[in-house]
Amino acid sequence: MNAVGATTGTHAGESPVAMLGLGAMGGVLAGVLLDAGRDVTVWNRSAGRDEALVARGARRAAGVREAVLAAPTVVACLYDHASVHETLDPVAGDLRGRTLVNLTTTTPNESRQVAAWASQHGAEFLDGAIMATPDMIGTPGGSILYSGSRDAFDHGRGILDVWATSTFEGTDPGRASLLDLAMLSGMYTMFAGFLHGAAMVGADGVSARDFAARATPFLAAMTQAFAADAETVDGGDYTTVSQSLEWSDLGHLVRASEEQGVDPGPIAAVEALRRRQVDAGHGQDDFARIYESLRRR
Amino acid sequence: MNAVGATTGTHAGESPVAMLGLGAMGGVLAGVLLDAGRDVTVWNRSAGRDEALVARGARRAAGVREAVLAAPTVVACLYDHASVHETLDPVAGDLRGRTLVNLTTTTPNESRQVAAWASQHGAEFLDGAIMATPDMIGTPGGSILYSGSRDAFDHGRGILDVWATSTFEGTDPGRASLLDLAMLSGMYTMFAGFLHGAAMVGADGVSARDFAARATPFLAAMTQAFAADAETVDGGDYTTVSQSLEWSDLGHLVRASEEQGVDPGPIAAVEALRRRQVDAGHGQDDFARIYESLRRR
Ligand SMILES: NC(=O)c1ccc[n+]([C@@H]2O[C@H](COP(=O)([O-])OP(=O)(O)OC[C@H]3O[C@@H](n4cnc5c(N)ncnc54)[C@H](OP(=O)(O)O)[C@@H]3O)[C@@H](O)[C@H]2O)c1
Ligand SMILES: NC(=O)c1ccc[n+]([C@@H]2O[C@H](COP(=O)([O-])OP(=O)(O)OC[C@H]3O[C@@H](n4cnc5c(N)ncnc54)[C@H](OP(=O)(O)O)[C@@H]3O)[C@@H](O)[C@H]2O)c1
Repeated sequence: MNAVGATTGTHAGESPVAMLGLGAMGGVLAGVLLDAGRDVTVWNRSAGRDEALVARGARRAAGVREAVLAAPTVVACLYDHASVHETLDPVAGDLRGRTLVNLTTTTPNESRQVAAWASQHGAEFLDGAIMATPDMIGTPGGSILYSGSRDAFDHGRGILDVWATSTFEGTDPGRASLLDLAMLSGMYTMFAGFLHGAAMVGADGVSARDFAARATPFLAAMTQAFAADAETVDGGDYTTVSQSLEWSDLGHLVRASEEQGVDPGPIAAVEALRRRQVDAGHGQDDFARIYESLRRR
Repeated sequence: MNAVGATTGTHAGESPVAMLGLGAMGGVLAGVLLDAGRDVTVWNRSAGRDEALVARGARRAAGVREAVLAAPTVVACLYDHASVHETLDPVAGDLRGRTLVNLTTTTPNESRQVAAWASQHGAEFLDGAIMATPDMIGTPGGSILYSGSRDAFDHGRGILDVWATSTFEGTDPGRASLLDLAMLSGMYTMFAGFLHGAAMVGADGVSARDFAARATPFLAAMTQAFAADAETVDGGDYTTVSQSLEWSDLGHLVRASEEQGVDPGPIAAVEALRRRQVDAGHGQDDFARIYESLRRR
């Protein structure tokens, strides 16, 4: 087999890249590729966002098609699933033989849908979930999870590793997104828990800064408890108890929140999960059993 | 003034201690005092829980009154607010001139109520909130927050510092409990967020152990973001945006949870707080503004 088209004569790791979407994240992704000496063609829906990149050496594409035709690897970093289709549907026929790397945040099912769509149009597909803020791109602290085509991942390392620590999570194109969203769920829920605590003490005049100074090391230390909970969940035996559901009554916490004039929403949601297990007769089981309240099927 | 009664001839720091409640926590609190060479009289509602302690040198009290009369410092570590009254109401008249240290978990208002009750009966009152599990008692890792009588705290250090790192949080007897509950709210909410994420990936066959290995360092690192949120909350100006409410749409997270067959409860509670601010026209403000959804008054 001979390399054809845009890849002719170029090692895949050094081949041109087309970057669709130059927002806060896409702009930085394109920028670090330029810094790494890559040939980058850029496109953005609204005009103007490409200017600084062009000044740094990027090629400006007049439209999506021009961008796609310029490179064997097409990277999308757009707003959401709908914007990916809005952008790529008109050029679907031009994707054949190329690799589409979608770094847009989507649900696992949306990732699978784009994968099937890409495959239908003859493109290799790799879904990426960015576990980083733009300032972490190009630093070792950034992490991007990938899933979908193993080949696309292996051949793309020359690009992917410029951005962040790259890990391949499996051939199910939804897997990277699933892991990402599950971790984000933990993060946003934790943020809400922190702000809920801050509101409780805030009602009595304690500053959020004072509360953060306490809660930051405390919650960081408490993440160490995840491992034991995980072992209990995986074992499926909740009768070895580190802290029973009955003992972990959060009713006084909900009550204290109400008394402080603070919406108990976040902690009331946890109490509801706990209560469901207690009501089902599992009060003597371990707290980790609230996992069973979460799992519907 | 002369020292009287049980304190006669004894430095307050070395005076006898009465311990009411010898459960998982109370038993350990009594034990480490014995290890420190203190004179400890113990009482527990049910028989038998004092045996190991008596073998280690504790004095056994036949009833609550006998325990209270044996020491100038009476420590209660019972189940809840109601059990404190059930235990102490009958001996209220014997508390005069003594110090009551209540380590039972109560709401801030309950702590204030016990403080007023103790004062009415001529006792000094100190409320304690234990930020530790029993195995951390007597180690530097344990922390107990106190509030109420500053004198009782200062004179009690000889006892309190045997248990854990002791901090005085103010003369409002409800303060220690408030700080404790606010941090526990953060902790339980974080645990629920972790288990929710584990359930999402678990539906696709990823083990909770695998998820914990990812979520533990990620969430620990993300606690560093509390400080910036706290500054925004304290400043009351949500227009300096690190991440806007509009941008932080958690709808796709709720949707992905549903698609995995996982109850979106914890993250849906956060999304509801976010939505309330967006609907009120604050979509361009910082995510920390969900604090305003929590604060009802
Ligand atoms: N920023 C982060 O910290 C971060 C972290 C992890 C993941 N991500 C993900 O990365 C993706 C991009 O995020 P971002 O921070 O760069 O967002 P952003 O700054 O809001 O940029 C959004 C980009 O999408 C484009 N776009 C929106 N709707 C479009 C449509 N219908 N058709 C074509 N283009 C459209 C925008 O073009 P216009 O300029 O024309 O509006 C812009 O280039 C998102 O999926 C996000 O979840 C971001
Ligand atoms: N264990 C921890 O990790 C921990 C951490 C922080 C705070 N705390 C707090 O410490 C307190 C005690 O916890 P624990 O772990 O020791 O609980 P525990 O093992 O369940 O013991 C409860 C104690 O309360 C007594 N009690 C219950 N109801 C009573 C009543 N109506 N009258 C008199 N005594 C009564 C029990 O006596 P019987 O033996 O007769 O039942 C027992 O001594 C709780 O408020 C808890 O929230 C515990």
